[in-house]
Amino acid sequence: MAQKPSIPKGTRDFNPSEIAKRNYIFDIIKKNFQTYGFQPIETPSFENSDTLLGKYGEEGDRLIFKILNSGDFISKVDDATYADKKSASIAPRITEKALRYDLTVPFARYVVMHQNELDFPFKRYQIQPVWRADRPQKGRFREFFQCDADVVGSDSLLQEVELIQLYDAVFSELKLEGATIKMNNRKILAGIAEVIGAKDLLIDFTVALDKLDKIGEDGVKKEMLAKGIAEEAIEKASPLFLPQGSNDEQLERLDTLLKDSEEGKKGLEELRFILETIATLGLQSAKLAIDVTLARGLNYYTGAIFEVAAPEGVKMGSIGGGGRYDDLTGIFGLKNVSGVGISFGLDRIYLVLEDLDLFPEAIDQSLQVLCVNFGEKEAMAALKLVCQLRKSGVKADIYPSSAKMQKQMKYANNRNVPYVILIGEQELSKNSFIVKNMKEGSQEEYSLTKVEDFVNHLS
Amino acid sequence: MAQKPSIPKGTRDFNPSEIAKRNYIFDIIKKNFQTYGFQPIETPSFENSDTLLGKYGEEGDRLIFKILNSGDFISKVDDATYADKKSASIAPRITEKALRYDLTVPFARYVVMHQNELDFPFKRYQIQPVWRADRPQKGRFREFFQCDADVVGSDSLLQEVELIQLYDAVFSELKLEGATIKMNNRKILAGIAEVIGAKDLLIDFTVALDKLDKIGEDGVKKEMLAKGIAEEAIEKASPLFLPQGSNDEQLERLDTLLKDSEEGKKGLEELRFILETIATLGLQSAKLAIDVTLARGLNYYTGAIFEVAAPEGVKMGSIGGGGRYDDLTGIFGLKNVSGVGISFGLDRIYLVLEDLDLFPEAIDQSLQVLCVNFGEKEAMAALKLVCQLRKSGVKADIYPSSAKMQKQMKYANNRNVPYVILIGEQELSKNSFIVKNMKEGSQEEYSLTKVEDFVNHLS
Repeated sequence: MAQKPSIPKGTRDFNPSEIAKRNYIFDIIKKNFQTYGFQPIETPSFENSDTLLGKYGEEGDRLIFKILNSGDFISKVDDATYADKKSASIAPRITEKALRYDLTVPFARYVVMHQNELDFPFKRYQIQPVWRADRPQKGRFREFFQCDADVVGSDSLLQEVELIQLYDAVFSELKLEGATIKMNNRKILAGIAEVIGAKDLLIDFTVALDKLDKIGEDGVKKEMLAKGIAEEAIEKASPLFLPQGSNDEQLERLDTLLKDSEEGKKGLEELRFILETIATLGLQSAKLAIDVTLARGLNYYTGAIFEVAAPEGVKMGSIGGGGRYDDLTGIFGLKNVSGVGISFGLDRIYLVLEDLDLFPEAIDQSLQVLCVNFGEKEAMAALKLVCQLRKSGVKADIYPSSAKMQKQMKYANNRNVPYVILIGEQELSKNSFIVKNMKEGSQEEYSLTKVEDFVNHLS
Repeated sequence: MAQKPSIPKGTRDFNPSEIAKRNYIFDIIKKNFQTYGFQPIETPSFENSDTLLGKYGEEGDRLIFKILNSGDFISKVDDATYADKKSASIAPRITEKALRYDLTVPFARYVVMHQNELDFPFKRYQIQPVWRADRPQKGRFREFFQCDADVVGSDSLLQEVELIQLYDAVFSELKLEGATIKMNNRKILAGIAEVIGAKDLLIDFTVALDKLDKIGEDGVKKEMLAKGIAEEAIEKASPLFLPQGSNDEQLERLDTLLKDSEEGKKGLEELRFILETIATLGLQSAKLAIDVTLARGLNYYTGAIFEVAAPEGVKMGSIGGGGRYDDLTGIFGLKNVSGVGISFGLDRIYLVLEDLDLFPEAIDQSLQVLCVNFGEKEAMAALKLVCQLRKSGVKADIYPSSAKMQKQMKYANNRNVPYVILIGEQELSKNSFIVKNMKEGSQEEYSLTKVEDFVNHLS
């Protein structure tokens, strides 16, 4: 009863080469998270449903994967509900757990549950998969990793400064030079809505503004009008539709526009502090640019808002984003804990590095040395050599059977092995081994009593 | 509407210190997997239900977590089934996906799906979580990691030899010395059942034999009788109830017992080859011991069977196990692919290392340096220093606000930071910084123009 196997749509198998590349990115992100003082936590793949439901809006609730209760689940559904046969009312009676939808809500839950064990400010990073029952499409998966770094328990703007430096450090180490870190501030957006007299329409205003890139000035104005923002208000906001210009030009423009809004001025002050501090400290390769059209998850952010764009010329949505939120843990009963965080878009960073050919050359070289197997006696000598090589940290292997030379060499080629070792009868009698450099085709002979000579040559 | 948050039973949050310790184990296992030529793969957390169901027996099927279909799932249940209100018949109509139960079946599915891309022998390792709806109890979780290394596509006994060396290499590097790798062979068990005339009762025989440790000779004999094994057959098998003795003593005993069974003799020959080769190559710290009572998942294994016991004196079940199986991929339509593999029991290894105090001392030192924050101007100098330290790979941080000294030092203590850096007004004027060694209480002053002096001191 053999089945033709497949995997669920929107999920992926990762082969060794893909994992090597993914780990290359993960390792650089992790290393920098750690040098910046962040500590790792991990939370369970599934949470109690009530931890997750209602936290991501109606659309989010629909996209959360629910886990069927074990055992005789259906007997727990009361007759009236059962008779109705409605999915929405039956679901909560037959599921109690759901797969993690992001890392933010589980983190908030973690902070509240463990608040007495934590030292605030608590800087945590978390790199784990999340699951969404989204319609799969190119670059969008039902299972994917999120990489988040957040600080909770400090409202110092130094955190924002650090997170920008962290982005810069990671992208620089990935050699992804010229990434642009776009920055905005919720208070500036609120200030604008206030001074143009559209305070109640802040969200509509920013959602429309956010589309400037895509639908142009006319499109944005049309949408604002449709949402009930007065023509006069739109007129007042018109400086925002100008070509962006330098950070200084934008600050000047905003100074004028926001002179009558306390909240707007506060936002500007924050923006200025961050820009100036970053200017003093310097960035390695990234650019930092004000972008007042940036709104991302506005309901959520209360201060700085970040988004990272890939270097110019690379067609790719944002490769990172984040911001400050002032009441993340409030949903679980812990009030007044300010937080700020960023995340890295692994799958997109992967595609960009692939696109720009930035992965290290030898990244999928999973084996450094393969010993050819010439038969039982020779294999024993090769096995001893392999033992020594492995103890020295060399990735080494012996072909498991004395198959035809051609077959063994083909295996070495397919696995992209740089060195093949030959110990035949002749070498055995001389107590030596021959190393074949697969790239250059050259050969060298070493003594089996001086394996370290070869090991030193490798490193 | 604040909820008091909790996590599902049988699941765990991991704090930074626990993660550091888990990663210490994972990293050593991974490193050795790699030096032994294994390559990583990853498979999705959930598989199509038909990939998993029916592979782990009835009990296994019950313990598999099923994922509720999205959308209006209940409308897909036909009226007759719905009217019946039976969980067993409704479940397959409202779920199509299920969480991975182990790494072996997904691996078999992977090999079959990707057979044309793989180079055989394919040596893969996989370290991912699995989920089981088991009753949670001490040391048994509903979400836990498995660490597996398998070779498929080679029937060479050198693979068994390598896997034993791999166990030895990992446990030696973990400083867990004196672990015992117990080894048996399915063919020996079959041979015994044959010569005592209980061939049809092989499973009952081995299940009973496996309990020798727990219920003693009398208990085992009683169980065998109850299962229908003749008294005379049990009498013939009695050498197996003797104290184990050395490997040589056991081989001798088995030679006599199995002299009339071809299969048994084949098993003995395999056992001998592995023992002799290992004797030639040597082990670093583990012991290799024949254990004919070892049966583990007998239905599954066809040759060697392994199990690792923690060093004597540590009360803990097996910390690893594995063996050879000859038709893993057959369930998915790929016949005649022999495989052999081992796994490491992460949670138990963790407990053993904790028990024996074998984790490195500084393992949860997540921050090497903390700069005290004395106010805006001083903080800017500290921030620059922190930048430099981080670029040199030092885990460094600055306290985000100029809180009271006592509060900042308490934070440094709680985070177990070895060095605290002070840049006050005085240091600022001298362009210097003071390093306080938190363990020794001593202080040293460095120039801000020669940060590398301090960095060198650290490494």
